[in-house]
Amino acid sequence: MMTPEQIKHAVEALIGADKVRLDDEALDIYGRDWTKIHTPRPRAIAFPRSTEEVQQIVRFAREHKIALVPSGGRTGLSAGAVAANDELVLVMDYMNKVVDFNPVDRSVTVQAGMITEQLQHFAEQQGLYYPVDFASAGSSQIGGNIATNAGGIKVIKYGMTRDWVLGLKVVTGTGEILDLNRGLIKNNTGYDLRHLFIGAEGTLGIITEATLRLTRPPQNLTVMVLGAPSMPDVMQVLQAFQKRLDLTAFEFFSDNALAKVTQHHQLQRPFETATPYYALVEFEAMTEEIMEIAMEVFESCMEAGWVEDGVISQSETQAQTLWNLREFISETISHHTPYKNDLSVVVSKVPEFLAQVDGFVAEHYPGFEVVWFGHIGDGNLHLNILKPDNLSKEAFFEKCHHVSDKVFQITQDFGGSVSAEHGVGLIKKDFLHFTRSQVEIEMMKGIKKTFDPDQIMNPGKMLDL
Amino acid sequence: MMTPEQIKHAVEALIGADKVRLDDEALDIYGRDWTKIHTPRPRAIAFPRSTEEVQQIVRFAREHKIALVPSGGRTGLSAGAVAANDELVLVMDYMNKVVDFNPVDRSVTVQAGMITEQLQHFAEQQGLYYPVDFASAGSSQIGGNIATNAGGIKVIKYGMTRDWVLGLKVVTGTGEILDLNRGLIKNNTGYDLRHLFIGAEGTLGIITEATLRLTRPPQNLTVMVLGAPSMPDVMQVLQAFQKRLDLTAFEFFSDNALAKVTQHHQLQRPFETATPYYALVEFEAMTEEIMEIAMEVFESCMEAGWVEDGVISQSETQAQTLWNLREFISETISHHTPYKNDLSVVVSKVPEFLAQVDGFVAEHYPGFEVVWFGHIGDGNLHLNILKPDNLSKEAFFEKCHHVSDKVFQITQDFGGSVSAEHGVGLIKKDFLHFTRSQVEIEMMKGIKKTFDPDQIMNPGKMLDL
Repeated sequence: MMTPEQIKHAVEALIGADKVRLDDEALDIYGRDWTKIHTPRPRAIAFPRSTEEVQQIVRFAREHKIALVPSGGRTGLSAGAVAANDELVLVMDYMNKVVDFNPVDRSVTVQAGMITEQLQHFAEQQGLYYPVDFASAGSSQIGGNIATNAGGIKVIKYGMTRDWVLGLKVVTGTGEILDLNRGLIKNNTGYDLRHLFIGAEGTLGIITEATLRLTRPPQNLTVMVLGAPSMPDVMQVLQAFQKRLDLTAFEFFSDNALAKVTQHHQLQRPFETATPYYALVEFEAMTEEIMEIAMEVFESCMEAGWVEDGVISQSETQAQTLWNLREFISETISHHTPYKNDLSVVVSKVPEFLAQVDGFVAEHYPGFEVVWFGHIGDGNLHLNILKPDNLSKEAFFEKCHHVSDKVFQITQDFGGSVSAEHGVGLIKKDFLHFTRSQVEIEMMKGIKKTFDPDQIMNPGKMLDL
Repeated sequence: MMTPEQIKHAVEALIGADKVRLDDEALDIYGRDWTKIHTPRPRAIAFPRSTEEVQQIVRFAREHKIALVPSGGRTGLSAGAVAANDELVLVMDYMNKVVDFNPVDRSVTVQAGMITEQLQHFAEQQGLYYPVDFASAGSSQIGGNIATNAGGIKVIKYGMTRDWVLGLKVVTGTGEILDLNRGLIKNNTGYDLRHLFIGAEGTLGIITEATLRLTRPPQNLTVMVLGAPSMPDVMQVLQAFQKRLDLTAFEFFSDNALAKVTQHHQLQRPFETATPYYALVEFEAMTEEIMEIAMEVFESCMEAGWVEDGVISQSETQAQTLWNLREFISETISHHTPYKNDLSVVVSKVPEFLAQVDGFVAEHYPGFEVVWFGHIGDGNLHLNILKPDNLSKEAFFEKCHHVSDKVFQITQDFGGSVSAEHGVGLIKKDFLHFTRSQVEIEMMKGIKKTFDPDQIMNPGKMLDL
């Protein structure tokens, strides 16, 4: 096995001096993502500046059978970018430039290391909009977003990251550069390899550049928060709004989530009435007429008893204040050492699914508090179980492991996904079979072997060969 | 090699009597698509009724190394569903039921043989909308649409067929059933095999069922036809409208296309002024305000000299009359024995691309008339060269073969696609390398071997192993 020094020497001979680090700080920072379960232990950290340099490193790694881990913004929640087994980490931080922009095509080509928020700002400066948005947008990188097909809070209107990728440049595990789809909107010439790399978590190759679609910025985004007596009522509200308006978001959270957020951040409740569940509805109020339609739907929901109280934003600031009630949840409950799961079912099955999981936890773990929130317009629920004060962290997570098994079983029974938007990585690998059949997994392995015959691309993530 | 009678006997033993035909009529009808180049010569025609029956046939075919061709509406334009080499054809006509519909999910699950127009009508009856639409919607089937990732006239707003597929049931070349994604909106659990089957033209497996997303029907669709002095002007018009409105279509056609349509169908020109190019703009005029914005943009285009004259529909009937000018082109020029190509480049490169192709044809084939039309908002151009009266069909197509080589070369130079929406099949197979690199094609072969190790699934289409 090559020593770290040998690797540094060899790689720097290929791509230039001062592009590989072996110091403890680098090994620690670049060997991990937002998960805290695995101890980082990479062999070396490389900092390529171009697709060609990435190619050089991959070819070198293939020759010497060195495992590679691509590292973007390191905000992943499934340990997809953790290097805990002597890997060589490829850090994309210095590949963060805009390569090309075309206002007619409304497309932008960026290097994989560009930070999501920078892309959003770039689009804004051009009078355009990149709509994929989520809590970690200030750190996450486009390459990582694509490798994990990032979702977020605007999926109901704008879809996942997948829906915005017009082209990809990748270096495969065979060390070859693929220039996939080159920004075309229509291109029916064989298997769309672009879509294979989206969500592949770096197991087939490394994304070095992406061409992304931009769109018209939304106008006068308006937010309602509505209090509902039950989950089936929340679903009725969703349907009622979708019949009349194009929603840009439809989120939900439980009353205990709201209580924790308002207390922790000293925020006001949106209105006096407390209800078990809340829906956050967002839409573009482009004209007075649309605003009137929204008010009509709101009133009809009140009359039907699906909504007990509600509030509508009168300004951008108020809209943001209402969003905070939803967006601060994750940070707020992080102080309660939560056990988290990112699940999805088809939208219509959400209430029954939620009830079954709630019922199971209440019956078997009566001391556990469950906090629900999520992107319910997409069927995506974030399940959070808070650690009781009288339980040690170890004992809590041990118990949660048993919860997982049952929750994933329920998810499977509902035809759902054990990872709606966070990916598989190391954390969900053992549970992949709850969502994907054995035959599917075998086919995935066949694909992996085609693109990465020597198993050097993020090995051990997503699946084992 | 098994005789047709032996196949009929064996297959009917598996799936029941009267489900295989060997008569000349059946062999002729079900052995072809809309292309007329290859002589159909299938060995037998099977009519399965369920996914399980398809699976039985595939397993039988695999055991006996019999090539299979899936046959949908047979409206393909690249000979992807032609059976000219003793294949067993699987006709999906009897698998045309709605399996499931859910108004909350706004999704419908149908068997692969459902006709596109029937799905559109079904959606309409539910107060919803299936937006993928094109000339052959009255005959084409959903399975075929998905296998070729059908595009059409609404792509600028609604995307390709790919964007509406929430789930797929397929039988792979290994004879196994995959139930891919099961209608989920968010599901990040490994490679998205669903997207691999979309556009695979039946070379990996046979699609037997699909879950499709439906959406809100468009309201008050309004059409403008605008006359522009040049292609760069058409592009300015596109940009001007896209800055202010969400367009549902942006089509174009040349003046000779319009002249032929108005003459052949005895239609009126949209307005007096003749200009070299016309743009057809469609949008949802949901409110008065949107109509006003559209008129403002129209006036600014006139002032800038990008538009010389124009007309706007005042009713649904008028909108349809204006659409006819564009939609009747294909049928009109079919009387001139056209040589057709379905090309795409990124939108911004359309004028330069079109000028180069025009220039080449004018210089080398001065007697040839070129008719352009297409979905220019997506960069998709339909190039049609009309047969001069003094040239035999054979001599014409012989010359066109040379045109193709140069046109594909120009397409490659522009980073475009030699098949924007019609697929590869038999007709574009030899030209695939103009759009896909050798490495990409090798990777595609690797994928093909994984799903179809015995090469029984539509062999010879798209690529040769």
